[in-house]
Amino acid sequence: MNIEIRRYKTTDCEKTAKLFYETVHSVNARDYTEEQLDVWASKDIDFEKWNKVFLDSLSIVAVCENIIAGFGNIDETGYLDRLYVHKDYQGKGIGEKICKTLEGFVKSEKISVYASITAKPFFEKQGYRVIRENTVERKGILLKNYYMEKRISMLAYTYEDSGKFVLKEKQVPKILNDRDAIVKVTLGSICSSDIHIKHGSVPKAVKGITVGHEMVGIVEELGSQVKNLKIGDRVAVNVETFCGDCFFCKNGFVNNCTDKNGGWALGCRIDGGQAEYVRVPFADTGLTKIPDNVTDEQALFTGDILATGFWAVRIADIKPQDTVLIIGAGPTGICTMLCAMLKNPGKIIVCENDSGRIEFMKKNYPQVITVTPDKLKDTVIENSSHGGADVVFEVAGIKDTFKMAWECARPNANVIIVALYDEPQVLPLPDMYGKNLTFKTGGVDGCDCEEILSLIEQGKIDTTPLITHTYSLKDIEKAYELFENKKDGVMKVAIKP
Amino acid sequence: MNIEIRRYKTTDCEKTAKLFYETVHSVNARDYTEEQLDVWASKDIDFEKWNKVFLDSLSIVAVCENIIAGFGNIDETGYLDRLYVHKDYQGKGIGEKICKTLEGFVKSEKISVYASITAKPFFEKQGYRVIRENTVERKGILLKNYYMEKRISMLAYTYEDSGKFVLKEKQVPKILNDRDAIVKVTLGSICSSDIHIKHGSVPKAVKGITVGHEMVGIVEELGSQVKNLKIGDRVAVNVETFCGDCFFCKNGFVNNCTDKNGGWALGCRIDGGQAEYVRVPFADTGLTKIPDNVTDEQALFTGDILATGFWAVRIADIKPQDTVLIIGAGPTGICTMLCAMLKNPGKIIVCENDSGRIEFMKKNYPQVITVTPDKLKDTVIENSSHGGADVVFEVAGIKDTFKMAWECARPNANVIIVALYDEPQVLPLPDMYGKNLTFKTGGVDGCDCEEILSLIEQGKIDTTPLITHTYSLKDIEKAYELFENKKDGVMKVAIKP
Repeated sequence: MNIEIRRYKTTDCEKTAKLFYETVHSVNARDYTEEQLDVWASKDIDFEKWNKVFLDSLSIVAVCENIIAGFGNIDETGYLDRLYVHKDYQGKGIGEKICKTLEGFVKSEKISVYASITAKPFFEKQGYRVIRENTVERKGILLKNYYMEKRISMLAYTYEDSGKFVLKEKQVPKILNDRDAIVKVTLGSICSSDIHIKHGSVPKAVKGITVGHEMVGIVEELGSQVKNLKIGDRVAVNVETFCGDCFFCKNGFVNNCTDKNGGWALGCRIDGGQAEYVRVPFADTGLTKIPDNVTDEQALFTGDILATGFWAVRIADIKPQDTVLIIGAGPTGICTMLCAMLKNPGKIIVCENDSGRIEFMKKNYPQVITVTPDKLKDTVIENSSHGGADVVFEVAGIKDTFKMAWECARPNANVIIVALYDEPQVLPLPDMYGKNLTFKTGGVDGCDCEEILSLIEQGKIDTTPLITHTYSLKDIEKAYELFENKKDGVMKVAIKP
Repeated sequence: MNIEIRRYKTTDCEKTAKLFYETVHSVNARDYTEEQLDVWASKDIDFEKWNKVFLDSLSIVAVCENIIAGFGNIDETGYLDRLYVHKDYQGKGIGEKICKTLEGFVKSEKISVYASITAKPFFEKQGYRVIRENTVERKGILLKNYYMEKRISMLAYTYEDSGKFVLKEKQVPKILNDRDAIVKVTLGSICSSDIHIKHGSVPKAVKGITVGHEMVGIVEELGSQVKNLKIGDRVAVNVETFCGDCFFCKNGFVNNCTDKNGGWALGCRIDGGQAEYVRVPFADTGLTKIPDNVTDEQALFTGDILATGFWAVRIADIKPQDTVLIIGAGPTGICTMLCAMLKNPGKIIVCENDSGRIEFMKKNYPQVITVTPDKLKDTVIENSSHGGADVVFEVAGIKDTFKMAWECARPNANVIIVALYDEPQVLPLPDMYGKNLTFKTGGVDGCDCEEILSLIEQGKIDTTPLITHTYSLKDIEKAYELFENKKDGVMKVAIKP
């Protein structure tokens, strides 16, 4: 069906007024009494006044087969006054088209509307959120409706150029695909990969994108094909975008999803979450509902560093008596350690050089053997039954730590390369011939978020000690300054939009 | 019990003669008739003649608690004439002690003996083999016995010094441990690792050892603790020595057995099998019985290159639709391919540069896609469903082929590093970040020989086309010359001792 949208003209006055009356008295009849409908849309419409309101505001009509099927108007402050679609033309996308057109007219920060009980679900679908319930009094009769708002612009931290991130006003993201969701970010974080982007060492990062890829929030709007979520759900956002349907997704290798945005796209190749809102493609796989009794702070790392630790441990095949070595006690190293603990290995050794992090380890995880690199080899030999660690996680990412990883591994051990390296590494195959090491190289396959959240809910994983600082989004530059320079014993910074 | 061995003296004449009579008439009575025993040991012994025989040969007596408990004599040609232990002193190791002492007296190539039916098992235990059944006639009475021989010296190809292998006479190996076996080699081979030893590029190789680590043969002698084998069993020798009891053995990581000879010891750190006989430690794990209907030629590669291919495929986790890439069509590459075929993957691609080997592949395995390195990438892309090979076996061992291996692998693929490299390799982790490759580095865990032989028996593996040449042990230098210089389209050379 062809729908033509055009500006309102005085000649439309009677037709629109009639449409208003008929629509209210038919469509809204399921939510309001006849008495209420009468005071809302009375038979004796003042056409002149009606016409004036429409001429004084930004007003449009939708025309189908030469018939006016709907209309709407908005003022320049973003107040969307009326939006009606004739009962015989509902469910054809006319309302959505009118709404989007009206939204496009204004440059305000947000759109507001008083929506009837009947219209509320429609506006929710368009990304409007209820701010408060409202009661209107007309001729002594009370009518309930909802004051709703939709944000149009927002603050977003943006990768402008190598070395330059800027906090700026941007349009709130829109649904681009029917599997998308728009999430209102309630808590985000800064990751060391963000620092890599800032310094231009992530070649795939696209200039102009909003950064940030670790966050939780509330579902604000959903594409029509999203199956497992509803508006208002509190969710953890997965760092990876994956379709769930391709060969790689079906095998759990979601980091290599063949979709053009597959893998780590958020905050790198598409707009991320150091902002007030984020668009999440493939929302059914990219979002995980947070259980009611899990806080945003508890869930914050689910989709990235905790998913990484969980993935690394999943592919490591830890056995009950094993000695597990984790090289690097940064946030990802600690998440890996927390996930390794779930397997109850014989011993866990964490190697770290930074005195602040050593202190953090000793304070929070006294049950773990924390050791400096110079004492590592001896400590591993003392604490392992078969000449080395049974499983090694390399979460530091430099030449020395790569060497440490294979040297401290016992024969036939699994060495999981979790870190991101700036340089190629040397694999001395002649020296290690016959040692039969397995190297699993990195890139989180983050498809275990539901299980992770369930473990958090059960109290089996607690990453909240990692949040050492919290900043508001408007102060994000200070947060970066602190995080990048490892000031004040920072582990992770949470960002509140 | 203290047993003293001393030279025979004339004063021992009567006692030994009496012992002889009594032993024959008691111990041998279970195998011979009274009539036979009488002509063998008659009551009226000619003491003078008895004494002369003993004085003219190398003769000893075993004395226990001042009583002569046994005796024996041998001549300088290695003919062991008599060996008797009194019935009251049997089962105490006296016979073995006499036998070993007599064997030590001579420098001959072999020891021979006519053993009674009763003594035959004893001599077999000492490493003697029946050459023929024999019938003696005495005073018209026939007695059955066995002509048996034990080799004392043998031909063995020896690592003398860097660059120098020499074929020389050596002592036949002896049981050194009660879990050992002595195997008479019936067919051996030359491996490229032998060439590596020759050129001094195997630092662990010990000068003076007999080389060769791929062979089949017949069990000639067994240590007392060997449980699963019997003398005369036809066996494949495992390239690896492993105790079967340590942590690594129990987990199938037999290449890293913690025994001092664990892993590849044969023909490297202890005497190997390019010889007439080989001592195999931990015979129960080091030897596998060859099924009757499998020839030596069919079984020849079981313990080394076929075990390697089988191990590599076992850890590779090939799935039915997979595209499998094998880099290098040398003997080990081909064995890997044969084992990969058992998994029925979608496609097998073999990459090879040498025209002779390409021809060999096309002739023997036309069903496989054989490709030269320059066309490899395109061929892999054309013949794989997910952007690269699902499993890659690197069996070539140089920088170019290592790079090929990870480049031609699809994301999340298994890359099995089977080859032995002369140089460390570069692992470009930044380039492969997110590709999530698993590298399994090499060194066969050869614990599947029984299964391999069963598959050969069922006709599911046939490596006989690999035996392109056969040489006798005495011509082994010519065989090395051919193999090392890849002459005459050689794949593998079999060596017949």
